[in-house]
Amino acid sequence: MKNIAVLGSTGSIGKSTLSVVRNFPGRFKVIALSANSDVHSLCRQIEEFQPSFVCIRDKSAAARASKIIKRTTKIFVGDDGLDQLVRERSIEQVMFAISGSGALSSLVEAIKGGKSIALANKETLVMAGPLIMGLAKKKKVSILPVDSEQSAIWQCLEGENRNNLRNIYLTASGGPLLKKSRAALESIRVKQVLRHPRWKMGKKITVDSATLMNKGLELLEAMFLFDVDFLRIKVLVHPEALIHSMVEFIDGVIIAQLSVTDMRIPIQYALSYPERLPSRLKGLDFYKLGVLNFEKPDLLKFPCLGLAYEAAKGLGTLPCVLNAANEVAVGEFLRERLRFTQISKVVEKVMRNHSNKQNPGLRDIQEADNWARISAQSVIARLS
Amino acid sequence: MKNIAVLGSTGSIGKSTLSVVRNFPGRFKVIALSANSDVHSLCRQIEEFQPSFVCIRDKSAAARASKIIKRTTKIFVGDDGLDQLVRERSIEQVMFAISGSGALSSLVEAIKGGKSIALANKETLVMAGPLIMGLAKKKKVSILPVDSEQSAIWQCLEGENRNNLRNIYLTASGGPLLKKSRAALESIRVKQVLRHPRWKMGKKITVDSATLMNKGLELLEAMFLFDVDFLRIKVLVHPEALIHSMVEFIDGVIIAQLSVTDMRIPIQYALSYPERLPSRLKGLDFYKLGVLNFEKPDLLKFPCLGLAYEAAKGLGTLPCVLNAANEVAVGEFLRERLRFTQISKVVEKVMRNHSNKQNPGLRDIQEADNWARISAQSVIARLS
Repeated sequence: MKNIAVLGSTGSIGKSTLSVVRNFPGRFKVIALSANSDVHSLCRQIEEFQPSFVCIRDKSAAARASKIIKRTTKIFVGDDGLDQLVRERSIEQVMFAISGSGALSSLVEAIKGGKSIALANKETLVMAGPLIMGLAKKKKVSILPVDSEQSAIWQCLEGENRNNLRNIYLTASGGPLLKKSRAALESIRVKQVLRHPRWKMGKKITVDSATLMNKGLELLEAMFLFDVDFLRIKVLVHPEALIHSMVEFIDGVIIAQLSVTDMRIPIQYALSYPERLPSRLKGLDFYKLGVLNFEKPDLLKFPCLGLAYEAAKGLGTLPCVLNAANEVAVGEFLRERLRFTQISKVVEKVMRNHSNKQNPGLRDIQEADNWARISAQSVIARLS
Repeated sequence: MKNIAVLGSTGSIGKSTLSVVRNFPGRFKVIALSANSDVHSLCRQIEEFQPSFVCIRDKSAAARASKIIKRTTKIFVGDDGLDQLVRERSIEQVMFAISGSGALSSLVEAIKGGKSIALANKETLVMAGPLIMGLAKKKKVSILPVDSEQSAIWQCLEGENRNNLRNIYLTASGGPLLKKSRAALESIRVKQVLRHPRWKMGKKITVDSATLMNKGLELLEAMFLFDVDFLRIKVLVHPEALIHSMVEFIDGVIIAQLSVTDMRIPIQYALSYPERLPSRLKGLDFYKLGVLNFEKPDLLKFPCLGLAYEAAKGLGTLPCVLNAANEVAVGEFLRERLRFTQISKVVEKVMRNHSNKQNPGLRDIQEADNWARISAQSVIARLS
C-alpha cells in the first residue's frame, strides 16, 4: 500500500489520477489532496478518499471549505500550506498535477523530504531543471514523468544503458492548426485553437499545443529529465499521436512507445513503477488504425518551437523566461487581448531583452520569472 | 574478447556476421567456421579470420579443402563433424546461420555444451521448440534470436517483467505478392516471387515470405522463444518493414522496435548483448519516411499462415511436419515443378495425413520430419 498525495486533484490530471487509484484500492491510498479553489469537487473527493491532509490555495475558498470538512482531515492554506503539506512524513509519493510555475516551491520541498515524485507539471522542470534534477540526485529521489511523451521516453529507456542513447524522437500531434497556412494563423480565434484533435486537456496546454510551444517545453523537460543535449532531441510531427515518443540507440535501433491517447496510462505507470498494473482501457487496434504519419515540424509556421531550441541552447534563466513570457502571452490570447501569432512575438521579445544568468539558484529563477512576466505585460501593452 | 563459432559462414547471415565481427576486432574472435560446400568463400574467410576449427558438410568439398587449408586449422567433416566442432571447449558463443532442419543435431550439442546460442535458424525451433527451450533452461543457456522480428520482440521485452505481456504484434512486410489478387497468385512465377521489396535474403526464405509461411514459422518460433500462447501472437502486415515487431503489456502500453532493414543490426545485438555497440549504418530518417502502414493479413490469399496457426494449436510433431512439407514444396516450386498456390495445398494435405504425437523426443521429431518429406513428395507426385 503506497500513501499518495495528489496535488491539483480537481484538475484534469488530478481527476485521472484519482480514477486510477480507484481501480487499485489495495495498492494505493490517497492521504493528501490539494486544490486551488474548486471546493465543491474537493469536498466530494475528501468524502470518497478520506485523506488525512488537504491544502486549498485560495484563502477565501479555504475559509468556506473549513466549515464543511470534517475534523479528521487537517487543512493547509495557500502556497506555504502546500509546502508544509508535502513535508508530512506519511506521504510516500507526491503527484504534481498542478499546472504552472506555482508548483516549484512545493516540488523542491517534496524532493527535500525524500518523497518519490510523479511529475505532471512541466513548467517547474522547464524553469529549474538542473536545480530540480541536481537536488533529486542528491536526495536519491526519483522524478517519474507523467507527461505522455516523457513517460514514453522513460519506458523506452527502461532496461537499457543510457550511455547508449543516440537520439530522442519527441513526437508532436502538431495540434489543431497543423494543416492551416501561415497566413490563416494570423486570424485564428481562441475557439478554433481549443479544438484539439487528439487530447482533451486544459486551455493553457491546448494553446501551447497549437503554437508547438508545448513541444518546446517538452524538449527542455526531456533535456533535463534524461540529461541529454538538446541537439539530440528531434521533434517529429506525428498527427495520430499514438507513438508518444521514441529513442534511438548507438546501434541504430529505435524503441518506440505507443498507446491510446489516455492520460490514465502514463499516470498509472508513474504510480505503479517499477511494476505494470492491468488496465481495463481498450487497447490500440492495429488492424483498424491503418496508417501512422510523420513529418518535420515547420519552424516558420510555429516559431515557438525555435524559441525553445534557443532557450535550450542558452540555458541559465532563459528557459524560465521563455516559460513565464509564454504563460502571460497565452493568458492574454485566451482573454482575446492578443492575436495567436503575437504569442511567439511576445516571447521572443522578452527573451531578447533578458540578461541571461547561468547556473541560477532558486531565487534567481523566481526573479527571472517575475521579471519575464512584467516584461511580457509591457511588451503586450506596447503591441495593442 | 568473446570466442565465436559461425556456422553457415558462407551464407547470407554468416557473411553479415563476419562483417559485424570485422568492426570489433578487440571484442569478438572467430575461432570456428562452417560451410556446406562453398570451399572458395570458406578458404578466403579462413585466411582472414584464422579460425582454429572449420567444418565442411559436403564430403567431396571437404576433401578438396583439406589440400588448401593450413595445418593450424582443424577440419571437421559432415554433420557428425559439426556436432563435434560445437563441442570444442574454447567456443563461447555459436552463431547458427545455417538454414533448414539440418542444424538441429548440432544445436542440441551446442546447448548441451553450455554455449551461448545466437539463433538465425528458425526451422530447428519450429520443429523442436519445447525440446530446445527445455534443454536450454536446464543447461542455463541463452537462446538469443537473430531473426529481426524475434530480436525486436526480445528487445521490447528487455527490462520488463514477462508476466506483464499481453500480446505480441509480429509484423510482416507482406512479401512481394501483397498487392496481387488471389486469382493472379495462381499463375505467379518463381522470378516474380524472388523480387522481395524489403529484404535481400536466400531463395527459400523469400518464397516463404511470399506465401506468409515465413510469418507462420516466426509465429511458432515466437511462441516457443517467449513462452507465449499462440492466440496472443497477432500477425500484422506492415509493408514498410521498419517496425520489426511490437509487444503490448497489461497496462495497454505497446513497445515497438524499429530500424533500417539490415540484418547486421539484430546480428550485432545477439553478439554484443547485454551491451549495445555503435553501428556505422545509416539510421532511419523519420523526417523522410513519411508513412507507416498496417493491415490485417488475408488468410484466404495466404493460407500458409492459417496452417501455421493450426500447427501452433496442435503442437506435438505438427509444427515439424508443417516445416518439412513446406521445405519440400518450396524446393519443388523453385525447380518450377509446382505452382505457387500448390505450396499451401501440399503442406495442408501432409498435415491432414499426419498422426500427431505430443511431447515428442528428438527421435520422434526426426521421424516426423522424414515422414513429412516423403509424404510431401508423394502428394506432389499425385498433383502433377
